[in-house]
Amino acid sequence: MADSGDHGVPKLQASIEALRAFAENFRWANVDLLAYKEEGSAPFAGITRQILFADPLLGCELRYFEIAPGGHSTLERHEHVHAVMILRGEGRCLLGGRVSVVGRHDLVHIPPMTWHQFRADAGQALGFLCMVNAKRDKPQLPSEAELAALRTDAAVAAFLDGHTR
Amino acid sequence: MADSGDHGVPKLQASIEALRAFAENFRWANVDLLAYKEEGSAPFAGITRQILFADPLLGCELRYFEIAPGGHSTLERHEHVHAVMILRGEGRCLLGGRVSVVGRHDLVHIPPMTWHQFRADAGQALGFLCMVNAKRDKPQLPSEAELAALRTDAAVAAFLDGHTR
Repeated sequence: MADSGDHGVPKLQASIEALRAFAENFRWANVDLLAYKEEGSAPFAGITRQILFADPLLGCELRYFEIAPGGHSTLERHEHVHAVMILRGEGRCLLGGRVSVVGRHDLVHIPPMTWHQFRADAGQALGFLCMVNAKRDKPQLPSEAELAALRTDAAVAAFLDGHTR
Repeated sequence: MADSGDHGVPKLQASIEALRAFAENFRWANVDLLAYKEEGSAPFAGITRQILFADPLLGCELRYFEIAPGGHSTLERHEHVHAVMILRGEGRCLLGGRVSVVGRHDLVHIPPMTWHQFRADAGQALGFLCMVNAKRDKPQLPSEAELAALRTDAAVAAFLDGHTR
């Protein structure tokens, strides 16, 4: 954002919560860079979280997650739905038994109780928006048997082993 | 999205609703290009709407609006809140009595009953994501007196007259 110059349009102040400017390297004014989850609570690697909108008047929150090159989110499932738009970079996502390549502005809908995980490619970060209900259930991690069942698919096993393209 | 080539990762099919690929010129696979509103129902110019996520399991919808160069959304207010992220181009928004320049990835929070309008610059389209409650009230248009009150501010009057930078 910048001063428009004409017509006395005021320059945005960082203190105005209503308008938060995009900054360098996918940060925003007045938005904290948070840990993805509590360390040790679940498996993940190289991922951060920023809460872009969390208004009690809205039924959902909008968050921005960024996975460092080669990193990944937790493999998990839950009753609540995720509505994802990729915002930066390229990577792959596991959705149920399927691995797909995802890139900028692609849309991913994660239905209830569907195993899912995002992985950034080795060479670049993967950033994405995620819309989610404000009230939601706790994610479940796969049991050894569930993980073994997922791994019977060669593409899924390669994905889970972090074989990047 | 593209076939990853390795590990037998399947190419995404356009028919898979869960994964919708970003396409040329800010369109998405399996997402219809809609009118912004019913023609004649309210003042607006050069604006389209795409519903990216509207899942009954989610409390909110995510829409993408795109305003053609020099176009504008309706000047309106309502009880429901908008959570906006600019996705494409540059323009200006009126929020209450304030006009601000907005560009790619900037965040705009529109509180209840706050007059607001988006305008694209003359030279480029302005595209933005808008998260909104699925259940919401009908927008109100300004009365002549309310419009006159807004126009007492010179920057607001210039904005409403479409004076682009």
